[in-house]
Amino acid sequence: MAVGVAVLGCTGSVGRSALAVIERHPSMFRVVALVAHRNAAELADLADRHSPAVAVLADDRTSPDGGHEFLSGREAVLQAATHPDADIVINAVVGAAGLEATLAALEASKRLALANKESLVSAGPLVLAALRRGNGELIPVDSEHSAILQCLTGASDRSVRRLVLTASGGPFREWPVEQLAGATPQQALRHPTWSMGAKITVDSASLANKALEVIEAHFLFGVPYDSIDVVVHPQSIIHSMVEFVDGSVLAQLGFPNMELPILYALTHPRRIVDTGTRCFDPVAAGPLTFEPVDGARFPAFRLGLDAGRAGGTAPAVYNAANEVAVAQFLGGELDFGEIAVVIERTLEAHDPVPIDTLETVLEADRRARQVASEISRSRC
Amino acid sequence: MAVGVAVLGCTGSVGRSALAVIERHPSMFRVVALVAHRNAAELADLADRHSPAVAVLADDRTSPDGGHEFLSGREAVLQAATHPDADIVINAVVGAAGLEATLAALEASKRLALANKESLVSAGPLVLAALRRGNGELIPVDSEHSAILQCLTGASDRSVRRLVLTASGGPFREWPVEQLAGATPQQALRHPTWSMGAKITVDSASLANKALEVIEAHFLFGVPYDSIDVVVHPQSIIHSMVEFVDGSVLAQLGFPNMELPILYALTHPRRIVDTGTRCFDPVAAGPLTFEPVDGARFPAFRLGLDAGRAGGTAPAVYNAANEVAVAQFLGGELDFGEIAVVIERTLEAHDPVPIDTLETVLEADRRARQVASEISRSRC
Repeated sequence: MAVGVAVLGCTGSVGRSALAVIERHPSMFRVVALVAHRNAAELADLADRHSPAVAVLADDRTSPDGGHEFLSGREAVLQAATHPDADIVINAVVGAAGLEATLAALEASKRLALANKESLVSAGPLVLAALRRGNGELIPVDSEHSAILQCLTGASDRSVRRLVLTASGGPFREWPVEQLAGATPQQALRHPTWSMGAKITVDSASLANKALEVIEAHFLFGVPYDSIDVVVHPQSIIHSMVEFVDGSVLAQLGFPNMELPILYALTHPRRIVDTGTRCFDPVAAGPLTFEPVDGARFPAFRLGLDAGRAGGTAPAVYNAANEVAVAQFLGGELDFGEIAVVIERTLEAHDPVPIDTLETVLEADRRARQVASEISRSRC
Repeated sequence: MAVGVAVLGCTGSVGRSALAVIERHPSMFRVVALVAHRNAAELADLADRHSPAVAVLADDRTSPDGGHEFLSGREAVLQAATHPDADIVINAVVGAAGLEATLAALEASKRLALANKESLVSAGPLVLAALRRGNGELIPVDSEHSAILQCLTGASDRSVRRLVLTASGGPFREWPVEQLAGATPQQALRHPTWSMGAKITVDSASLANKALEVIEAHFLFGVPYDSIDVVVHPQSIIHSMVEFVDGSVLAQLGFPNMELPILYALTHPRRIVDTGTRCFDPVAAGPLTFEPVDGARFPAFRLGLDAGRAGGTAPAVYNAANEVAVAQFLGGELDFGEIAVVIERTLEAHDPVPIDTLETVLEADRRARQVASEISRSRC
């Protein structure tokens, strides 16, 4: 019997890759639930193609497509995330909206293949508590965290000395620092190695994305911040590394491709034969280079690490302020350089508190968005 | 109680590194047996330092050192390799002489940490049979094979698609091909990244060493020759890679250092805290580059792969002919370019037969040395 998979965020970049992987292995996997944000037409096509038991439009203000009866709204999303036929839930919802689905899937003992960064960043302690309570599984889908998980498979917890996340450095790695502040959305969206959604691509340009990944790695692998390093690796061939207590380093590598970490999240710790991705060829990959992260160039990165270390609600506030600022930047209302300023001011206005309930997180998130919007407006 | 270790070849490059590793972890490991070839003075020092139960000079024509009563000869070597207090036997004997010790240690159910390449190359089927009979363990010490073992730990046998061994390319990687034939021993001994013994350094210059490693990998990991690739990687930072059936690639990397694979062979599949080797820093490592192997430049490499594929006694003959030719080259009696010629002619004069007994191997080895010597002499 094929493994049932729910795909949350099915019309986004990760969701589409997930469905491509699932389609290549029809005897292994079947789609049992699909959740889209508001692209009713594409959801209708996907529903026709995969015949899920449930198809949901998360945004209930969207009018459903002609011939289809979609469920909609928050409750329907949670229904998909906990569907009894779903063994695996792929959460590729963008932004803080994915958090509730993460908690619900883990409480329902699912294997959660997590592409939604904000779940762990905003509410790491709650996610880990839900994981323990539901006795489910939490498997990362991000290429960096998947790389680390692959390097750790077979290793004991106590054998890890350091995680080394790689970062492409984004399109602004070599720009004169003084020109960075005025970079346009079009320039920020020109990612050198990965093709992804707009929000995450801007985050890659500011390296906010890498700070979010460090925070995620901290919670996913239980490694203290002092033992997580980031190195700029412009070719994005080495997806991340693990240094062990004996000094040995393992790395996972390959041409950039989201389908591979998605497939691994479905099969971990096993692997299945798949020839759908381009075979790695080190000669074709060209020279692999590494540079330290330039903190002066990427203030949003440093702010994110500081928020991670501060703990409690600080990472949720960092994430919310960044979401607001990036949206404003993409809308032409903020300069690229002001993203970090909005984040910094928002964090300054916030006293982090420990995360005990979902309400604590949602309140910090709400308040941070409000503060960030006010700061943004005052700068226009 | 500390794990008992026998170190065979204790005065060579690998043996000294092994003793340095053991000395750093006195509560974990103790030396119970030492075997040197004929360096009585150094063996005496090491015996004073480590107080082994047995100390052996393999070459019984060597007169023992004043104050010490060493055992000597073939039987004494086998006694060290099967010593009841030895849980682990490190076989770092150079050349075909290590084969009998390999078989004896495996038959005696030891963990064999194998640095002697010739055991598996000359007598792979016999070594695997001894491993099965003794129910011991066979762990590679070579940095390339250790890298592969580390990448495979936690993986299922059926998940491997391809092994990719890296080769530094040696000192002649960029020489004009027409000058190669006349390279001197001094030039061949200038290895770009590793400091090793003379024989293996010349083998690295001709890439015969890499052919021997491919044959070893074939037997160690049960992977067919068509699924073992070699790529030139001049920096020797990535020590080798494994490509899995899903297309994912794991690599083990670090600054070149033999102590790390030796330590791993002692602790596999676990790791222990060791700060004796230089911490890996990808930025300090500089650009990592990869090139295909140039078959025209390295005929000894191609001949080795052909011998591996031919199977039976062919790899033993390849190895013996290479040992003879390298010794002649180091002695100034052969040109560098003639090493491959001697190997080729020796292989042409041999009809491979299946390996059923040790005598078959030893006879092929003996005959090959004789033929290779005759060919060498005829060229002087």
